Amino acid sequence: MGISFRLTKLVNQGGKKLLLVLAGLATGVCMVYAASTLNPVSYDGSYAQDRSQIEDLEARYMYALNWLDADSYAGTFTEDGILDWAGGVAQGRTEIAEEIHGMAATFAAEEAADAPLRPARKRHFITNMAIKVDGDTAQSRAYWFIMNNRNPERAGYSEAYGHYESSLRKVNGQWLFTKRKIYNEEYPDRTAPLANPAW
Amino acid sequence: MGISFRLTKLVNQGGKKLLLVLAGLATGVCMVYAASTLNPVSYDGSYAQDRSQIEDLEARYMYALNWLDADSYAGTFTEDGILDWAGGVAQGRTEIAEEIHGMAATFAAEEAADAPLRPARKRHFITNMAIKVDGDTAQSRAYWFIMNNRNPERAGYSEAYGHYESSLRKVNGQWLFTKRKIYNEEYPDRTAPLANPAW
Amino acid sequence: MGISFRLTKLVNQGGKKLLLVLAGLATGVCMVYAASTLNPVSYDGSYAQDRSQIEDLEARYMYALNWLDADSYAGTFTEDGILDWAGGVAQGRTEIAEEIHGMAATFAAEEAADAPLRPARKRHFITNMAIKVDGDTAQSRAYWFIMNNRNPERAGYSEAYGHYESSLRKVNGQWLFTKRKIYNEEYPDRTAPLANPAW
Repeated sequence: MGISFRLTKLVNQGGKKLLLVLAGLATGVCMVYAASTLNPVSYDGSYAQDRSQIEDLEARYMYALNWLDADSYAGTFTEDGILDWAGGVAQGRTEIAEEIHGMAATFAAEEAADAPLRPARKRHFITNMAIKVDGDTAQSRAYWFIMNNRNPERAGYSEAYGHYESSLRKVNGQWLFTKRKIYNEEYPDRTAPLANPAW
Repeated sequence: MGISFRLTKLVNQGGKKLLLVLAGLATGVCMVYAASTLNPVSYDGSYAQDRSQIEDLEARYMYALNWLDADSYAGTFTEDGILDWAGGVAQGRTEIAEEIHGMAATFAAEEAADAPLRPARKRHFITNMAIKVDGDTAQSRAYWFIMNNRNPERAGYSEAYGHYESSLRKVNGQWLFTKRKIYNEEYPDRTAPLANPAW
Repeated sequence: MGISFRLTKLVNQGGKKLLLVLAGLATGVCMVYAASTLNPVSYDGSYAQDRSQIEDLEARYMYALNWLDADSYAGTFTEDGILDWAGGVAQGRTEIAEEIHGMAATFAAEEAADAPLRPARKRHFITNMAIKVDGDTAQSRAYWFIMNNRNPERAGYSEAYGHYESSLRKVNGQWLFTKRKIYNEEYPDRTAPLANPAW
């Protein structure tokens, strides 16, 4: 039902070109998608407490990022934490803080180029947190997207998006990132894998 | 204060046309909006634990949807769960999984039509979760919107949006959707009701 | 590493103009950004319960706002609560409800101006909640952005964005806003401060 409904709709909307595509599909385009077996997800009695602190960490990470607060940003990682993003891989808080210093230089250059317009404001929003806790370690998945206003009117618009895949460890009662990999749909080599990254 | 402030501003911005509208308002356009009586919301001692698991379910639902993981998607519903969306109404996990198979076919057709461009990536973001728990049942409200990059540059842009109204039941310790109705501001017949859907 | 990598990239993308900017940077443009000392964040045993109720309050605030439910909106504040936004400062539930009545009038005027198009739907999304609880008081930070569809096609687009800085108090078991200040990147006099508003 679902298929015929939508293909019909597509044909109506797309006309001749899509009919050809559908003919192509019928003669062999592969439509295999990842499908996981349904596994019940289990949560222990401290899930709420762990999740609430991890959610808070995920939020504080974004404030530190967007306000170019290098120390607080690096401080969301463990001492040996790994940041893997479009700009490269950084390990340890010193290298991770350097990434923020690099962004700060970029923004300073943009602000100088834009003057006398007021500084543009690039903001990363985070949503869709799937969080799995196992004792003192955890896995987190989240979506992100960017709002920006770098145009003559300083009018808001949405921009890049992607998702995070993170591993966490609880150190002295603090949840921290041991590794955070940033998938980014803007760059062909940073797009998401085909299989569901959650569970 | 609020009214006069804003109407003046509108007049300044909109000019003659809005002056006519305001004249129209003065002669009888009805401005009645839904207003609920203020009721304190109560939360019992397990609210955090229930809410954290429901938030996680809401997130996993989105990963399953966007990665076309039909089994995991259907698995966020009870066996007899109902999905009510712009494409129709599906009941039970088999029918619900079919909806994802239908979307997969649509995306496969789009990918074929777009080649050699890399596949576009449509992502649903979820926010604004109002969650009310009553023992083993719950009500959830959430906002959603879509980021997509289906253009020649694969540049990100925001698209459709709307909200979810969901009923849930706890089955063997797992929160699952018994019904999920998807309001969608893109379609005139799926827009939100006028009264506050939360509480 | 981070700096040279990115500046090189900028030069490649922006050409001559950015080379001049970089020359300007080298001769004295100040690149000092706020950097906080890394302080461990502490959470007591009731954090999950408090956070979950505050998250729910933040969500219900948005439903009340977007559905112009003035009483529910005002009810998310304490009796003497303060709302500080682009439209002015309102204190107490009566004044705060007036702000919603003002918005309702604005939307009614827009709907009349847009007829026979269906009413546009402006929605505020909330994310990135950093929440700090200290007994019966709390501090909350959150991001917001707007989706709207006020065009002839009623096609969705993103619009304004900013962040909230809120103080809360628990009154008779209910978390309520004592003050909510709305930063808004659309207006030069409402943009965010330069220092990280979180912790």
